[in-house]
Amino acid sequence: MIFDPAQDKPQEECGVFGVYSPQPTDIAWLTYLGLFALQHRGQEAAGICVSDGEQFLVEKDLGLVTQVFDEARLDRLRLGAARVGIGHVRYSTTGSNLRFNAQPLTVRTNKGILGLAHNGNFVNAREMRAQMLDEGVIFQTTNDSEVMLNRIARYAHLDLIEATSRVMGELHGGFAVVLMSRNTLVGLRDRNGVRPLCIGQRDDGAWVFASEPSALFAVGARLVRDVQPGELVWADREGLHSLQVLSGKPTPCSFEWIYFARSDSTIDGQDVHESRIRMGEQLAKESPVEADIVVPVPDSGIGAAIGYSRVSGIPFDYGLFKNPYAGRTFIAPTQEMRELKVKMKLSPTSAVRGKRVVLVDDSIVRGTTSRQIVQLLRDAGAAEVHFRVSSPPITDPCFYGIDTAARKELIASTHTLEQIRELIGADTLAFISEDGLREAIGGAGVCLACFNGEYPAGVPLENDVNKLALEV
Amino acid sequence: MIFDPAQDKPQEECGVFGVYSPQPTDIAWLTYLGLFALQHRGQEAAGICVSDGEQFLVEKDLGLVTQVFDEARLDRLRLGAARVGIGHVRYSTTGSNLRFNAQPLTVRTNKGILGLAHNGNFVNAREMRAQMLDEGVIFQTTNDSEVMLNRIARYAHLDLIEATSRVMGELHGGFAVVLMSRNTLVGLRDRNGVRPLCIGQRDDGAWVFASEPSALFAVGARLVRDVQPGELVWADREGLHSLQVLSGKPTPCSFEWIYFARSDSTIDGQDVHESRIRMGEQLAKESPVEADIVVPVPDSGIGAAIGYSRVSGIPFDYGLFKNPYAGRTFIAPTQEMRELKVKMKLSPTSAVRGKRVVLVDDSIVRGTTSRQIVQLLRDAGAAEVHFRVSSPPITDPCFYGIDTAARKELIASTHTLEQIRELIGADTLAFISEDGLREAIGGAGVCLACFNGEYPAGVPLENDVNKLALEV
Amino acid sequence: MIFDPAQDKPQEECGVFGVYSPQPTDIAWLTYLGLFALQHRGQEAAGICVSDGEQFLVEKDLGLVTQVFDEARLDRLRLGAARVGIGHVRYSTTGSNLRFNAQPLTVRTNKGILGLAHNGNFVNAREMRAQMLDEGVIFQTTNDSEVMLNRIARYAHLDLIEATSRVMGELHGGFAVVLMSRNTLVGLRDRNGVRPLCIGQRDDGAWVFASEPSALFAVGARLVRDVQPGELVWADREGLHSLQVLSGKPTPCSFEWIYFARSDSTIDGQDVHESRIRMGEQLAKESPVEADIVVPVPDSGIGAAIGYSRVSGIPFDYGLFKNPYAGRTFIAPTQEMRELKVKMKLSPTSAVRGKRVVLVDDSIVRGTTSRQIVQLLRDAGAAEVHFRVSSPPITDPCFYGIDTAARKELIASTHTLEQIRELIGADTLAFISEDGLREAIGGAGVCLACFNGEYPAGVPLENDVNKLALEV
Amino acid sequence: MIFDPAQDKPQEECGVFGVYSPQPTDIAWLTYLGLFALQHRGQEAAGICVSDGEQFLVEKDLGLVTQVFDEARLDRLRLGAARVGIGHVRYSTTGSNLRFNAQPLTVRTNKGILGLAHNGNFVNAREMRAQMLDEGVIFQTTNDSEVMLNRIARYAHLDLIEATSRVMGELHGGFAVVLMSRNTLVGLRDRNGVRPLCIGQRDDGAWVFASEPSALFAVGARLVRDVQPGELVWADREGLHSLQVLSGKPTPCSFEWIYFARSDSTIDGQDVHESRIRMGEQLAKESPVEADIVVPVPDSGIGAAIGYSRVSGIPFDYGLFKNPYAGRTFIAPTQEMRELKVKMKLSPTSAVRGKRVVLVDDSIVRGTTSRQIVQLLRDAGAAEVHFRVSSPPITDPCFYGIDTAARKELIASTHTLEQIRELIGADTLAFISEDGLREAIGGAGVCLACFNGEYPAGVPLENDVNKLALEV
Repeated sequence: MIFDPAQDKPQEECGVFGVYSPQPTDIAWLTYLGLFALQHRGQEAAGICVSDGEQFLVEKDLGLVTQVFDEARLDRLRLGAARVGIGHVRYSTTGSNLRFNAQPLTVRTNKGILGLAHNGNFVNAREMRAQMLDEGVIFQTTNDSEVMLNRIARYAHLDLIEATSRVMGELHGGFAVVLMSRNTLVGLRDRNGVRPLCIGQRDDGAWVFASEPSALFAVGARLVRDVQPGELVWADREGLHSLQVLSGKPTPCSFEWIYFARSDSTIDGQDVHESRIRMGEQLAKESPVEADIVVPVPDSGIGAAIGYSRVSGIPFDYGLFKNPYAGRTFIAPTQEMRELKVKMKLSPTSAVRGKRVVLVDDSIVRGTTSRQIVQLLRDAGAAEVHFRVSSPPITDPCFYGIDTAARKELIASTHTLEQIRELIGADTLAFISEDGLREAIGGAGVCLACFNGEYPAGVPLENDVNKLALEV
Repeated sequence: MIFDPAQDKPQEECGVFGVYSPQPTDIAWLTYLGLFALQHRGQEAAGICVSDGEQFLVEKDLGLVTQVFDEARLDRLRLGAARVGIGHVRYSTTGSNLRFNAQPLTVRTNKGILGLAHNGNFVNAREMRAQMLDEGVIFQTTNDSEVMLNRIARYAHLDLIEATSRVMGELHGGFAVVLMSRNTLVGLRDRNGVRPLCIGQRDDGAWVFASEPSALFAVGARLVRDVQPGELVWADREGLHSLQVLSGKPTPCSFEWIYFARSDSTIDGQDVHESRIRMGEQLAKESPVEADIVVPVPDSGIGAAIGYSRVSGIPFDYGLFKNPYAGRTFIAPTQEMRELKVKMKLSPTSAVRGKRVVLVDDSIVRGTTSRQIVQLLRDAGAAEVHFRVSSPPITDPCFYGIDTAARKELIASTHTLEQIRELIGADTLAFISEDGLREAIGGAGVCLACFNGEYPAGVPLENDVNKLALEV
Repeated sequence: MIFDPAQDKPQEECGVFGVYSPQPTDIAWLTYLGLFALQHRGQEAAGICVSDGEQFLVEKDLGLVTQVFDEARLDRLRLGAARVGIGHVRYSTTGSNLRFNAQPLTVRTNKGILGLAHNGNFVNAREMRAQMLDEGVIFQTTNDSEVMLNRIARYAHLDLIEATSRVMGELHGGFAVVLMSRNTLVGLRDRNGVRPLCIGQRDDGAWVFASEPSALFAVGARLVRDVQPGELVWADREGLHSLQVLSGKPTPCSFEWIYFARSDSTIDGQDVHESRIRMGEQLAKESPVEADIVVPVPDSGIGAAIGYSRVSGIPFDYGLFKNPYAGRTFIAPTQEMRELKVKMKLSPTSAVRGKRVVLVDDSIVRGTTSRQIVQLLRDAGAAEVHFRVSSPPITDPCFYGIDTAARKELIASTHTLEQIRELIGADTLAFISEDGLREAIGGAGVCLACFNGEYPAGVPLENDVNKLALEV
Repeated sequence: MIFDPAQDKPQEECGVFGVYSPQPTDIAWLTYLGLFALQHRGQEAAGICVSDGEQFLVEKDLGLVTQVFDEARLDRLRLGAARVGIGHVRYSTTGSNLRFNAQPLTVRTNKGILGLAHNGNFVNAREMRAQMLDEGVIFQTTNDSEVMLNRIARYAHLDLIEATSRVMGELHGGFAVVLMSRNTLVGLRDRNGVRPLCIGQRDDGAWVFASEPSALFAVGARLVRDVQPGELVWADREGLHSLQVLSGKPTPCSFEWIYFARSDSTIDGQDVHESRIRMGEQLAKESPVEADIVVPVPDSGIGAAIGYSRVSGIPFDYGLFKNPYAGRTFIAPTQEMRELKVKMKLSPTSAVRGKRVVLVDDSIVRGTTSRQIVQLLRDAGAAEVHFRVSSPPITDPCFYGIDTAARKELIASTHTLEQIRELIGADTLAFISEDGLREAIGGAGVCLACFNGEYPAGVPLENDVNKLALEV
């Protein structure tokens, strides 16, 4: 069994990256750098595929980017004249077949060899797969990617771009996809733009598609613009092309600003760091409290804590040390030993001793870690602990690629605010309001489905995303 | 780069194994034992899949059976109530995509989850794949197995057995296949029976299919019979079933008796060890020589050397020591160092000093190793070296799953007997005659295509099996 | 080659941990937790040894604690009735013999089996080793630990405690040592207390010695007190014992408060987090500047940045995102690629755009990374960059276990303040004064040798700690 | 747990190899080749150290030579101008500290850096170590090598050769040692020459010392001569030197000819293959029987089986197939599965069906495997099984480096001939006589201690070599 210190946070399913260079360059290394910058979006598996127009190579495996790709393995992808490559990092569920589910998925089709990597979920993938099975299609993975590639190949008489644009209309849900042939890099985003994807360019002319601008900067590219909801873009010898395939109300995932995206990213025009500071400011306005210091749960609570401090005038302090080496380790065998677990990640500093603490976190999923953190602060001598959360209570599951937990495990789905406060042991507890959150992000339409159950991009036929799981 | 001490031998492409037990048993362990007994048929990759009727698990990777399956990995396959499993060992060509080509291949189809492993080649797989690509099918591997599974799934209205029997009629070439669903073990052999497959049974009632009887004995089963050419057999809750799907002239591969099969196996009713002794006896009758000792190239030349000694009356002796740890190691960087290579595997004993040696080997492919062995004997003081080969000259490539080498690399395809003798430096050289070989094996019809170019089971549309290679 | 993102920081050489439990407990797991909490003190190697009074087991290897100790390897150390254990994390120089240099070092002596792990340097180890070599002693490692163990064994007529106390008087430099026999845990600190060591106790009575209190908390122990400079302590069946072996002016290493120690630690009575805030406050008093935001270089600059903000009234903001997955990765092959390197670790957020930034870092060693960070901020639109450093300029090497760099590589050793400012490209640059630092730490005596060349604990005969290196 | 198919054979403890080249050459590769040829002498660990006169590098680990040394690891030993190197393969007992016990052992001494590897046992090492412990020496391994190196270093005023020659006189037992400094290769053999060591030379002038001539041939060297019992030899810039340090009755270990040495080796002037044939001839004279075929237990019984066949006139046949991939694998969990174990290694061919079989093996230790082999033959239809053993009954332990088993486990120590015959289930059973064995080897003095309890080179103070075991 694995102890994941982030287990009480929503889990992003993936990050994607792609690059097309008009002249040969070190595509494998650029993709490696891009994935490294997106590592926070998925830690279970990593993969890269590249082509020089002739050869088409893929390497992928379970592990962090730096674990999967040592120098020797990256070298195996170093084609002298490579021009196109895509990469993927994945967060994933348990199972013995994980390795074969790693992306990019690479297949030979009537449009040549294709590689595909996606972030998000197709809510109707299960239906489409059932129908294809009836028709005689065989499936080797449980990836939605395999469904999409089969659909693209079915349009045998169309070229890659036309076939892909057709398939975009067939798929529902929240997703961002990068796709490559030997000579073309393709990117697309669901019609509501639930999952992010942006376009960048390097000084040498190379086009880069990535889940976040952070990955553009990481490879020396500047942000050109976000891919639009429902837009299909591709880069090839002639340059960058675009097709607005579908239209829909833009509802990007609000959790990108709350927690997922890096604070140096800007998603759909809204800066992540600034949004987080505004969330904290909003929280301070909505739920003020008399206290001595504002303490973030590092690292994701830092922005909101700064905002809360600014509006409230209560000094910001670093009251929780986070062990930078905290990561996956195995569970201790005894109960007493198990309780030492959270201390492997977080430890209170002297700042909280005797103080009335405003503790700022980005979200509460099950509440288990929150209770432990409050207890840590009290053990360290905090006089009061006022818990402030920069997202509304999570009450509903996500069908667009985020693993929050089953509804029955969501503490806010089964408990009142007061019950939650009592369970986590805080003196006071407040979540940001939906309106407050919306305003902090910038007022535009965002997906708040996990807070209010309103799913802008459809839901699966059967309300159980777990049914997508396949044994082999 | 890899140094394969067996590089100048024909390479068997695979060994297959399957087991169905009426009551739950340790299927994973039995399959492991079976594969271990078939290790000589393929050293590049190994894989096992098992099912208990619900779960369907697979583990496969590059390496020897004992390298792929350490205790922990085998344990992952240990379902408490498993009843059915198949396994595969593979000899394979180079390429970065080897791992994804390992078998068994497991897919979800309209007939449920299926696992498939095969030995041999479908000569029309390339044509069939090209046609399916046109129709929109996508391929993830370069395995013929994937072609076969796609064909089976296309018969959406038929059950597994019916669909498989139809597909048997579509496929040409030499092959033996084991296939499993959650509840059924299937075996089949091409219409000419080029590649071997036999049926065994354990005392506890479990049915076992394997490439060679050695693998039956290894799991405590007795040989029941060989699968007939063109026959489809399957084992399930009701017992063993058979369907004679196709009829054809039986032409099992003669190289099974010459070199591939273990000397404790009996293939299609003909004992391998006895056949090899008869080959040596025949050689002694056809090509006698005056000499002091008969020396086998270990281990495959031992049987024929014993036979040669018996008929000729010349004493058998162990003149070449074979390092039991010889296996794959990397190539030395300099020419002088490279020449030490053959000595890592073979070393002459004192037996040859001052003697006129009859050196008995099973085959000559390129002739490079033969020349080195002759030189080793001369350096050790052999007075004369008379080379006797228990197979005819190899002049043609195999399209049924054996990797001999390209035609231009076959020394017997481009040189006369006298030229070969000179090249390898022997005093005399003789190959067994085709008739002599046929008689030694038992007189029945056997495939001698690599000796005479007569292909009983068809040839590929384009005469190049390498065209099947795929980059991804 | 390895890219170490922390390469421009002083490198702590080690962290040590020891535990003695009156009743059997899971010593291996406690030591694992303790080392995990000390991981920041050394990332090159980790090791643990344990005993149950009979068996004496050790496991050590190159890598992080979680890399060296997977569940299976930790299990190998799980003696049912273990009572005593020590552990070590190590920062280390390059070389092929690293693995054999990992600690704890375990040897059989006339006092039974001993394990020893140390932090710091014996400045006269080289002399002592030379003399022992002359006498016929053989050395298998280049560890000072081996020198110390040989000295202890030489006192053949004395028991472990007496012999160790004698050896304490022979050794000069800065060091903290944990040492264990089958039944006793020993700890000691050099006469000046240059390197830290503290004592804790768990509720079950177990005694814990560790480099920092953080490691006590990590195993559920409370801080009892620091080991005194020149003190020898040991825990056994009778409880905790102490012997004040040597006396000297206490001069603990100031860099513990500046950079090494975790912000949740208290060293020699001075809280680390509070000290860092005071350093920032002091800096703001000494070197004020007109600016818009105070930005820390994460994570070690956070405390001082908060202090600077408090005194200056300039808002604290999170202007540099630190990739939590940044760690060791390999160097890119080309110059252009190499320049992307620092971006793998740090990336500016929108907070700095158009702002006059006070950038707060803990130290400058070579200045290379500082220049890159300033450039990152300018590229992100910072209007001005005012660099403030919470330590004085580093001008001299450390001989007490810290790897700063050779003197000629120390930018402050060869450049004026103005030259440094120009080189790193800052608008203004200021270091904290020695007096200011001393006051921030608490006014007591501290070692400032790397800032002023006054070495309180002696120097090596030859002024080159590198001469200690041994090829084998 | 580990299944060792060779578990019922005596286990050689080690093989040693050394090379000195007057001009720089690829020392690491030559040593690798030499160790590969000696792999049969030890499969648990392998190590190589090399020097170019300045650098002194070592790599060693658990595993076969090809497992420890992949290309990258061998490359780490490739000094451009290397002249001297030694290597070691080891068979070893269980324990968690195995890795630290691997040889060569490398230490810094008053004679510079030394590397040492040995084969055999010093019977008084335990006494010497106890005394040195009293004097204050510390020990890090349980290797006799460490004792020897400490003794050499004690002669501080003598040079390496003089000191080593002194130490030769202090040590008792059976051993062969290779030792190197940066510029000299040293070899030596105990005064009785119990363990073998020979000298070879390559055409380029390089001197090679090795346990067997096979390793000389493997590196392109010719056998010059054996090192004499009690002789010290060394190679350096001036060439090869010799010193006859001690004199004693030569009693080389008879098991080298019976089982250990490769059949292409010549030890102390007696050819191994010829000796084995003579053992079989002798057996046939001493213990004739009426039978149909002579079958060897492969591979070590082949020579004696050929000899038995020649004298008896009964045809030699290959009745037992040995799986060339048999090696270490783990034990099956159930009893039924466990019984399949021996079949993983050996399997009868059709040759034995209905035949009266003379089964020839080299030795019987515990008798367990012998019983299983007899049963295999009977199950395969053998009419009679007549067991012939080319060594006398093993009744006593070896103190000179061979792990036979404890005396109580030796079947011949506790059972009569008739009892053994009954236990292993043979129709008749005969061992070669001591005189017969002596004559087959060549009449000279050989050590027969394990057959008759007469120990020519002394015994340990306490009759228990296991007391040498150390926990750390």
